Amino acid sequence: MTALATPSATSAGVPAPAGVRPGAFGNATHLVCRACGEKSSLGPFYACLECFGPLEVGYDFPTITRAQLEAGPKSIWRYAPLLPVPADIATFRSTDPGYTRLLDAANLAADLGLRKLWVKDDSGNPTHSFKDRVVAVALSAARELGLHVLACPSTGNLANAVAAAAARAGIKSVVFVPENLEHQKIIASAVYDTTLIAVQGSYDDVNKLASEIAAEEEGWAFVNVNVRPYYSEGSKTLAYEIAEQLGWRIPDQVVIPVASGSQLTKIDKGFAELVTLGLVEDKPWKIYGAQATGCSPISQAYRADLDFVPPVKPDTIAKSLAIGNPADGPYVLDVVRRTGGLIADVDDETVVQNIQRLARTEGVFAETAGGVTVGVTAKLIADGVLDPDAETVVINSGDGLKTLDAVSGRVGPKTTIPPRYDAFTDFWKGLDR
Amino acid sequence: MTALATPSATSAGVPAPAGVRPGAFGNATHLVCRACGEKSSLGPFYACLECFGPLEVGYDFPTITRAQLEAGPKSIWRYAPLLPVPADIATFRSTDPGYTRLLDAANLAADLGLRKLWVKDDSGNPTHSFKDRVVAVALSAARELGLHVLACPSTGNLANAVAAAAARAGIKSVVFVPENLEHQKIIASAVYDTTLIAVQGSYDDVNKLASEIAAEEEGWAFVNVNVRPYYSEGSKTLAYEIAEQLGWRIPDQVVIPVASGSQLTKIDKGFAELVTLGLVEDKPWKIYGAQATGCSPISQAYRADLDFVPPVKPDTIAKSLAIGNPADGPYVLDVVRRTGGLIADVDDETVVQNIQRLARTEGVFAETAGGVTVGVTAKLIADGVLDPDAETVVINSGDGLKTLDAVSGRVGPKTTIPPRYDAFTDFWKGLDR
Repeated sequence: MTALATPSATSAGVPAPAGVRPGAFGNATHLVCRACGEKSSLGPFYACLECFGPLEVGYDFPTITRAQLEAGPKSIWRYAPLLPVPADIATFRSTDPGYTRLLDAANLAADLGLRKLWVKDDSGNPTHSFKDRVVAVALSAARELGLHVLACPSTGNLANAVAAAAARAGIKSVVFVPENLEHQKIIASAVYDTTLIAVQGSYDDVNKLASEIAAEEEGWAFVNVNVRPYYSEGSKTLAYEIAEQLGWRIPDQVVIPVASGSQLTKIDKGFAELVTLGLVEDKPWKIYGAQATGCSPISQAYRADLDFVPPVKPDTIAKSLAIGNPADGPYVLDVVRRTGGLIADVDDETVVQNIQRLARTEGVFAETAGGVTVGVTAKLIADGVLDPDAETVVINSGDGLKTLDAVSGRVGPKTTIPPRYDAFTDFWKGLDR
Repeated sequence: MTALATPSATSAGVPAPAGVRPGAFGNATHLVCRACGEKSSLGPFYACLECFGPLEVGYDFPTITRAQLEAGPKSIWRYAPLLPVPADIATFRSTDPGYTRLLDAANLAADLGLRKLWVKDDSGNPTHSFKDRVVAVALSAARELGLHVLACPSTGNLANAVAAAAARAGIKSVVFVPENLEHQKIIASAVYDTTLIAVQGSYDDVNKLASEIAAEEEGWAFVNVNVRPYYSEGSKTLAYEIAEQLGWRIPDQVVIPVASGSQLTKIDKGFAELVTLGLVEDKPWKIYGAQATGCSPISQAYRADLDFVPPVKPDTIAKSLAIGNPADGPYVLDVVRRTGGLIADVDDETVVQNIQRLARTEGVFAETAGGVTVGVTAKLIADGVLDPDAETVVINSGDGLKTLDAVSGRVGPKTTIPPRYDAFTDFWKGLDR
């Protein structure tokens, strides 16, 4: 079993998808089962007909050069030849996500005791999370497959990204959320005039309903259900950007937040593709996963030396990572073990402290997932696991403005004074600095 | 009187600033009074010693080519030769703002009845407003002038930008806010570990206190007070980016939100510099200003045919534009009249409707200032003022996540259902679509 479709993979024996224009999926040629390796044609499929395993996109890559990619637009579409999207993708209306900052994080590195550290800051995406990347690729697949509703079950970032992308593309969107979702998160999706449906139940109930609708209704693209193989490929662009922004090379170690685990496995896949295509020099890299202790099924499975992931009931402030039954769990375990990394977790108190640490040292205000990732990085250094001399990249996947409650009560004014200069000087003289 | 320092301006007679390294301000050579034209040396000065008029940065530009700028970093520092910053500015730690999306806004254009429209989306900046641009330039000036505290009076975006930039640069920051500021805005600045001082008084009281401190304390850089000439130059990068992203040409008309008015005058200055330097073809452009009716001192002055701006007491939901006594008021009047544009205003109800319009059509969630700008654009089209066939750019200066209250109560779920497929189909069949 291999999760990586190499350039030597061919589409032999896989019939061309019916009713789909030539080149609709670029250099992608087929879907392949991550469990049994069975190939099938490109289409709105996500489970293997043989073994019900998850499907992944396979490619037959031509020669691709750095210069060719560098000449592309300043968005994920510069990597179009490496994605299941048509060559003319940049001419379609999308939110044009990606190509976010790779910040040289010298202050945070010093604070953590690392020699060299970068933060890949995906809060700069159009709706301020990495979800814009995956939704943009899912939107392309939906368009090419003739699907006319973009949908998702979500509690936050994904709902924002789907609603915004659909608005810009001019297609209908439907977003399913738990009824008790915070009012602010509802507003930040509903403003795009999506059909937002509140469901009386838990997030698990919402998910189940979404899967049922995906199975029953014609023409719906649930981005993280029936077009998930395309959707998840969008996360590979994080690997491509990191490599290009480092001057076309792969860092020694990467720390990645883990919810479903898709992002982690796809960053590994992205690096492997760059090596196979000769776009970067081959070298070892280690992939580390980060979870919140209150929802750490994969971290627990790693410690228990399992190759499957028993589900848990989430209880953490890191809501965007709170998936108790992660779809890519076994593949995360495979990647971290294969690359020599691991997956660990930190508690909510540590999450908050590390949101503050990242803000204080680098001026980056991350959502709770960022606190998880920086917190796990610190823990792994303290435990002597992470090599402090190795070049390290941490992923910041979302924005602190969406999870203000996490730091509310922790930070605030240093003083309150009347509007007089002498009141200011009294405070300032007494300040310990 | 001219607000534009041309390449023919020289530093003759202006002594070199003492204690400042050669090249500290790049091609900038002096400060010049916008009122009387008197020149003075580069330094932490903002008011003319002759007439108390506001000072502006003047340059002696060498030959600058498109290729030279295009080869720069993907941030405002690609335009370093056009800013009062050293040539090696990109090697210093800043938030590296700018180079935000210029969105082809075909849906919004169709909705408004415009032939060709772009949205310059500055919500993609590091702290999600255009303030990151001006603060980055102010930070450089503070560093070069040996100032060691970055400070500002603010109610929101500026506080975020100052606190984040100072954190990343590793220098002290002090942010003064009115005591009654919304808790969320306090959190989003305090998280960077800035010295946030709450002042018992109105924003005007805070401003007055800040000016007093700037005058009394050594080594403080109040970004929008004593280093304001440098700070405000950062807004020119909006003009440079728009021109470069259009393929090195100037659009026919631009609609710009107006608070102090600095951004509007600097976009005009930026276009003029590009023409003078031969980087774009000379052509006429029209500059339009947008205010909220509840704080529209410049719009009122325009209608009354004044060349000065009587102050008003702000009362609008567009808090980021709520400056009742705008520093650049007369210069805004000069620019819009000289270019054949004008300045207009819309009420708060229209602001909210146009936040929703921009979100619905383009997937861009703007703060209230964006609603003002799109609202004024719509009004000017309806009034037959704006040419619907001319190529138009509107500026979105900030992010809707910071002003959620504006649309709260306006948008929300389309329905609430139990977690059953039949409940969904009942709703879906009955939906008017």
